[in-house]
Amino acid sequence: MPEIKYTNLDKTAAYTKLKNLKKAELKNILKADRIKRTSIAAGGGLTYNYAAKQAADDVIDALGELSLEQQLIQKYMEILSGARMNTGEDRMVLHQLTRGQTVKPVAENGSDIGAFYIEQQKRIAEFAGKVHRGEIRGSTGKNFDTVVQIGIGGSDLGPRALYLALEGWAEVNSKAMMDALFISNVDPDDATAVAASIDPETTLFILVSKSGTTQETLTNQAFVLDVMKKTGPEGLVPARHMIAVTSQTSPLASSDEFLDSFYIDDYIGGRYSSTSAVGGAVLSLAFGADTFEALLAGAHDADVRAMEADIRSNAALMDAMIGLYERNVLGYPSTAVLPYSQSLSRFPAHLQQLDMESNGKSVNRFGEPVSYSTGPVIFGEPGTNGQHSFYQLLHQGTDEVPLQFIGFKKSQRGFDLEIEGSDSQTKLNANLAAQITAFALGQDSDNPNKQFNGGRPSSLIYGSDLNPEALGALLAHFENKVMFQGLAWNINSFDQEGVQLGKVLAKKLLGGAGDTSESGKVLKAYFDLLQG
Amino acid sequence: MPEIKYTNLDKTAAYTKLKNLKKAELKNILKADRIKRTSIAAGGGLTYNYAAKQAADDVIDALGELSLEQQLIQKYMEILSGARMNTGEDRMVLHQLTRGQTVKPVAENGSDIGAFYIEQQKRIAEFAGKVHRGEIRGSTGKNFDTVVQIGIGGSDLGPRALYLALEGWAEVNSKAMMDALFISNVDPDDATAVAASIDPETTLFILVSKSGTTQETLTNQAFVLDVMKKTGPEGLVPARHMIAVTSQTSPLASSDEFLDSFYIDDYIGGRYSSTSAVGGAVLSLAFGADTFEALLAGAHDADVRAMEADIRSNAALMDAMIGLYERNVLGYPSTAVLPYSQSLSRFPAHLQQLDMESNGKSVNRFGEPVSYSTGPVIFGEPGTNGQHSFYQLLHQGTDEVPLQFIGFKKSQRGFDLEIEGSDSQTKLNANLAAQITAFALGQDSDNPNKQFNGGRPSSLIYGSDLNPEALGALLAHFENKVMFQGLAWNINSFDQEGVQLGKVLAKKLLGGAGDTSESGKVLKAYFDLLQG
Repeated sequence: MPEIKYTNLDKTAAYTKLKNLKKAELKNILKADRIKRTSIAAGGGLTYNYAAKQAADDVIDALGELSLEQQLIQKYMEILSGARMNTGEDRMVLHQLTRGQTVKPVAENGSDIGAFYIEQQKRIAEFAGKVHRGEIRGSTGKNFDTVVQIGIGGSDLGPRALYLALEGWAEVNSKAMMDALFISNVDPDDATAVAASIDPETTLFILVSKSGTTQETLTNQAFVLDVMKKTGPEGLVPARHMIAVTSQTSPLASSDEFLDSFYIDDYIGGRYSSTSAVGGAVLSLAFGADTFEALLAGAHDADVRAMEADIRSNAALMDAMIGLYERNVLGYPSTAVLPYSQSLSRFPAHLQQLDMESNGKSVNRFGEPVSYSTGPVIFGEPGTNGQHSFYQLLHQGTDEVPLQFIGFKKSQRGFDLEIEGSDSQTKLNANLAAQITAFALGQDSDNPNKQFNGGRPSSLIYGSDLNPEALGALLAHFENKVMFQGLAWNINSFDQEGVQLGKVLAKKLLGGAGDTSESGKVLKAYFDLLQG
Repeated sequence: MPEIKYTNLDKTAAYTKLKNLKKAELKNILKADRIKRTSIAAGGGLTYNYAAKQAADDVIDALGELSLEQQLIQKYMEILSGARMNTGEDRMVLHQLTRGQTVKPVAENGSDIGAFYIEQQKRIAEFAGKVHRGEIRGSTGKNFDTVVQIGIGGSDLGPRALYLALEGWAEVNSKAMMDALFISNVDPDDATAVAASIDPETTLFILVSKSGTTQETLTNQAFVLDVMKKTGPEGLVPARHMIAVTSQTSPLASSDEFLDSFYIDDYIGGRYSSTSAVGGAVLSLAFGADTFEALLAGAHDADVRAMEADIRSNAALMDAMIGLYERNVLGYPSTAVLPYSQSLSRFPAHLQQLDMESNGKSVNRFGEPVSYSTGPVIFGEPGTNGQHSFYQLLHQGTDEVPLQFIGFKKSQRGFDLEIEGSDSQTKLNANLAAQITAFALGQDSDNPNKQFNGGRPSSLIYGSDLNPEALGALLAHFENKVMFQGLAWNINSFDQEGVQLGKVLAKKLLGGAGDTSESGKVLKAYFDLLQG
């Protein structure tokens, strides 16, 4: 293997080449036969198709060269092997290891970290089984029927999106073991609304904080314990209704305020933690450990496929490199994620964090400013809802927005009705095919209001149905896409220093320390406006 | 009054002037005393503050000149007076009239349209009262306790966002009359999930479609009627569980399949219809007609304030013009909406439609291409959740994204707990003040990973609490902001031709008509991929 080098994007030969290639006109390249040639298996039964991208063969070739020049697969293998790729925090990056070993065991101080993740999931599976069989019950003797996750950011968005994505699947597959709810915002209305909707006697809380110091989460823990005391019956012991997911070094780990604790470590970033105990506890309780393990298997399948060196056979790499082309050569500032499945209603919000928190950086891995664009703005809502909302701008606005469609042959709950010759799922897919075509090819009109220029690029991830394996692969596909882009940009996709300053200033305000600097006065003036 | 002229933005003297003014550095202009000078009452007890915008007095002056040169207030008065400002469809634009008369009565064929809107709301109020008092009941004799709105786009996003925004307020103010649910997506999983969670005997459906021909909505109507028949008890008559909100000329208006019908007209665009019967029916049923009428009063207050000619006293105009400056002079492609209130969780999704569907246009009101950027991409999630998610990119990404914060002194449900010296609501507001300050002023660091350049602009809308008046004003503020921007860009903000092509192609697929054109083959190839 050649030595690994870390180079800024604009210092590579392939990038220079790429910038000089002519942009393909979709009207010229998007033919029915191209659609057949541009599918790549993405894992978990999913397929990624890039036919409607403005990337002809010469661009794809150059993107493949770029991935080789930036040694993306080699660097991915380094990550899988335990390289300390989170340079800012000097940490390994091991979320892929939570779903299975790929290259070789990763150990630290003689201890096998993969075995540690497996052990935690085994403990969770046992715990969930006991809860489901009624061997672990609430403190007043009632079976638990509801689980409430208290966490924010990565401890909330990913697990919540996955829970919603599998709720319908679980119902029709007899895997709906417990209802799950989530409390995240420090806004007291969030916890109050959830607390009002549950029965304290039959509810199990999961407190999720890797550091054990997240202000919002600890506040909501205290909030919920207070509500339990006030509204629960005599004899209710709140501590017997709460488990923790945290790191072994956190202050929570040694607390006796929990029924049990499950562990993560510093090598799993919040936004990458859905396949660790952070997602494992809530999803195993809600749907059974076997469901969560099927999700892990799908993610592992995607991880393995992402090791393929040929860009035309690596869905995550292709998605990443086309995204880079759109960002750095075509100059598009945002990307929309549009799942044609109501069950994926919060999946775009998870990807928004995953992508924007990972790659919204202005310095490279050495701390030097980069002189090219990095991560784009990510947004999205489920189709067909989006069609009746912001698609107007996507079709006819002055800016072009690349689109990432997701669709499935079958609905999740399986219940459907034929109306005017087609069932709803067929209508849904007809709309999806229609949108891709309309965006790409447009339609001329004598009425300028009805003119569709087309030339608006999209990709499609599709599969038979949204089951746990497919969902796991979908999750891992985007994690790996984001990773490849970050590596190509030569940035660290695994820290998030940009969230710190706001925390520090909020603490300063709440601490009441007088700050007579100009910035301190501004801070105080805004706080005074709000506090009236 | 001078004659009204319609001029492209780039043909105005003020725009040329604006482009030549120097961008202010936030570090130089954002001082505590500027915060005091930059608040404008926005109606409903709300205040808009623009201290942290990169607009010094010279820019504000030029924006005021631009609003005069583009005759924005005069054109707004024209709209209020019934001008056919929706040029593409040759229609009046009368959503402001749904919340009260401002300039003069608007009549058509001798009939007073404002009186028509009032009459519909009066009929809704009477109907809702009868439902609440049990005088109108389900077909098996049970009282209605749940209302389900079936609609998509403007018939869904606005009413849903407003319902969620007032749910907590209604609970603590004894106005929670009925639970509301929404079905929008043609994905059968959407209707199936809602149908599984309701009791057919006690549920009232509202079918909302202005044209009476919306594919998704009619499909979901049939879907729901089928479920009612299959799961309801013998004797249940589905038609007696459904009302319609539609135009008087729609095929639905003459149907006897409804318990009752309430009317809108062609002068209320879908995304502007929340204050018409489209929002009125569901919100009056959920929270009582008096609550909805308080929301109308707040919106009317904002509408009246938007008539003010001085930009420094007109919150919607100032917000609009600063947004235009950011879009056309500073070149920012997107804007984030960040409410620090969990109750506003879906308000950004509504604004996304409102703004992007209104101003995502490439031709002016005469159908001529414009050579400047129009509507930006809009996205957002509630803080503090967003802080732990995409704020990383907002603080340290390579692109700058203007921010629109919203905050309130008090929480909505009023339940709170002091933890470590402050309650949750105070922590929430401390975080909000901290974010504005951090974005604007940044903080230098020797560690380039921890460097915050600042200079990232934001505005703040704030008030005492999120009650119906404040919510109405918030809604109208953004409607009027979008309207002013569209007028300044000389585009038609009131049509949405860009959503048509996709519909046509989907219908073609479902109709099965063979299409041997290249575009027809592409369409079919994508459909085949999905249908597997």
